Amino acid sequence: MSASFQFHLDHLDASSAARAGRWVTPHGVVETPAFMPVGTRGTVKGVWPHELRDAGAQMILANTYHLALRPGEEVVRDLGGLHRFMNWDGPILTDSGGFQVFSLSDLRRMDDDKVVFRSHIDGSLLELTPQRAIQIQEALGADCIMCLDECPPANAPRQQILEAVDRTTRWAAICRDSQLRTDQALFGIVQGGIDPGLRARSAEGLIPLDFPGYAIGGLSVGEAPADMYKTLEATAPLLPEEKPRYLMGVGRPIDIIEAVLRGVDLFDCVMPTRNARNATAFTSQGIVKLRNAKHIRDTGPLDPDCACPACTQYSRGVLRHLFHVGEMLGPMLLSVHNLTYYQKIVRELRLAIRENRGQEFRLAHLAAVSSGP
Amino acid sequence: MSASFQFHLDHLDASSAARAGRWVTPHGVVETPAFMPVGTRGTVKGVWPHELRDAGAQMILANTYHLALRPGEEVVRDLGGLHRFMNWDGPILTDSGGFQVFSLSDLRRMDDDKVVFRSHIDGSLLELTPQRAIQIQEALGADCIMCLDECPPANAPRQQILEAVDRTTRWAAICRDSQLRTDQALFGIVQGGIDPGLRARSAEGLIPLDFPGYAIGGLSVGEAPADMYKTLEATAPLLPEEKPRYLMGVGRPIDIIEAVLRGVDLFDCVMPTRNARNATAFTSQGIVKLRNAKHIRDTGPLDPDCACPACTQYSRGVLRHLFHVGEMLGPMLLSVHNLTYYQKIVRELRLAIRENRGQEFRLAHLAAVSSGP
Repeated sequence: MSASFQFHLDHLDASSAARAGRWVTPHGVVETPAFMPVGTRGTVKGVWPHELRDAGAQMILANTYHLALRPGEEVVRDLGGLHRFMNWDGPILTDSGGFQVFSLSDLRRMDDDKVVFRSHIDGSLLELTPQRAIQIQEALGADCIMCLDECPPANAPRQQILEAVDRTTRWAAICRDSQLRTDQALFGIVQGGIDPGLRARSAEGLIPLDFPGYAIGGLSVGEAPADMYKTLEATAPLLPEEKPRYLMGVGRPIDIIEAVLRGVDLFDCVMPTRNARNATAFTSQGIVKLRNAKHIRDTGPLDPDCACPACTQYSRGVLRHLFHVGEMLGPMLLSVHNLTYYQKIVRELRLAIRENRGQEFRLAHLAAVSSGP
Repeated sequence: MSASFQFHLDHLDASSAARAGRWVTPHGVVETPAFMPVGTRGTVKGVWPHELRDAGAQMILANTYHLALRPGEEVVRDLGGLHRFMNWDGPILTDSGGFQVFSLSDLRRMDDDKVVFRSHIDGSLLELTPQRAIQIQEALGADCIMCLDECPPANAPRQQILEAVDRTTRWAAICRDSQLRTDQALFGIVQGGIDPGLRARSAEGLIPLDFPGYAIGGLSVGEAPADMYKTLEATAPLLPEEKPRYLMGVGRPIDIIEAVLRGVDLFDCVMPTRNARNATAFTSQGIVKLRNAKHIRDTGPLDPDCACPACTQYSRGVLRHLFHVGEMLGPMLLSVHNLTYYQKIVRELRLAIRENRGQEFRLAHLAAVSSGP
């Protein structure tokens, strides 16, 4: 990996395990804790790239599985690589595609060499290997890429989770050895479900491979939030302090706060944009459902504490109308708002950490969102 | 009507009947010829208001029928009126709702007093009268509003078109007398199909009512383009020279150019945004269909002569991908592009008229769009 990646830990919260840092990448600096909006198929749904920047996003994510199927990683490469493709000149992260193979496709067979699956698009039979996951991600060209891992469901038996841990470790070594590009940071992924012993086994297997950062996978897959928090509390301290830690696919604002307080630096989730398309807003006063008829004549803003264009230029009444009649502008406005809200959470967390107020921030957040009108 | 409306004719094209003017309204000046993007239900589909402005739009349109059904004109009024509702502080025009009653709803009965119809939304039985059309448009609050007219299909028998002309004239007088607000310009609508005698009869009936502007309705309803052009050639000279002329619901770029050369000033059409959602682009080299597989690896811009963000920030290959996978960003980008293209046409027409190059512009346009790759 290139020396163009550097992770600086600027401050450790005295009230928690939270960390404030700066991650230098070839496409710019990411202040941590950071939240990455998800651009599954090369675009954050309904949002222009300049709006992501205005919302405060510094790094975004795209999904390898979707892009490898359509338009294909070689098309993305031929169109100038993922940064050109997404019209985003900041840092980008891609996952390995493994999670979607297990969750979206029709999984046919898995052994130590590969997974064989049917595409959820056209039913064609495809296979993914650790080598291939790296090859695809090198063609896509994100700044940060992921090892292929096996992610069992939350209710899988211990033996299956154990095997997934060991296979993930073996695959991680293959992924590391398959890397040809030197300008991408390859992260290992810790598995192990909610079993602290298996998490330790996973971390111990991966750390000798000396990845420039570590992802925590296998959470937010059906377990209770309390179990996720306990697992993070046990797992984060096992990881090298001087490297970034990325909790994959999480989550609600409170989940992000709880994870930051336990030492996680990076997050991604479709929740702000998916909920936006579903007329559900995150606000400083809690969840607001814009289809509710009570908003019909409401001339007030969605969130009086928000400076985004949806809150400063539109009333709740107009937003409600846009969703009621099914206009695209509804999801467009609300996606910008929800992403602005998520970025505000991590921005305020960064400040709180620097002032040793991590726990205080969590309590203030909980009080605010439960005080709603 | 308020003195805040003034129409200045700045130049008459020596090569055609085209006019370049400025229309002063309570919400700003509209340079003519002008094209108004259509925001049927209070939003131009997939486009932010600031993007309309950036595309060059000076005035936009909303549909009374749709807004009266949902959310209801009183809700729009209570939310601050149409300008607040659409987040657009420039001039706005509303139609009377009549065209949609005839084309979209289940028309039940019409007499000299009213039309009775079933809502296309919920099947409820509603009626529209000339008085009510004005009442609704006053509640909405656009700058320019329309008389209720009867618009028969292109293939209607002469007797039906004659009756529609006379009813439209009677309704126009009622509409004028029903107007309470003084800050809205009410236009009369000339009907008469493609029959020059009926067009003359319609104009002669309306002109004594001394409207501040005249719309030409009943075109682009199924007749051949040549018939539309001939009708415009016969109709426009019948209208007062010193007042703006608005051709309703037209049309393709060439239709707009042909109509401008015959003396029309204002246009609206859903075509740029509807075609955009259908992956069809208007470009300086003609129509481009972005679903076509030949664009897959095309790194070039959609239109090299266009400065819009879709053309300067995205390749044809990426645009094709966005439509291929059904991402919202595809229609969003292409709507901005097509609207930019339409605005470029009228902007260049305004310049050409000032330089007595109206006919020349038409020929150059035809040569360019048929030269395509």
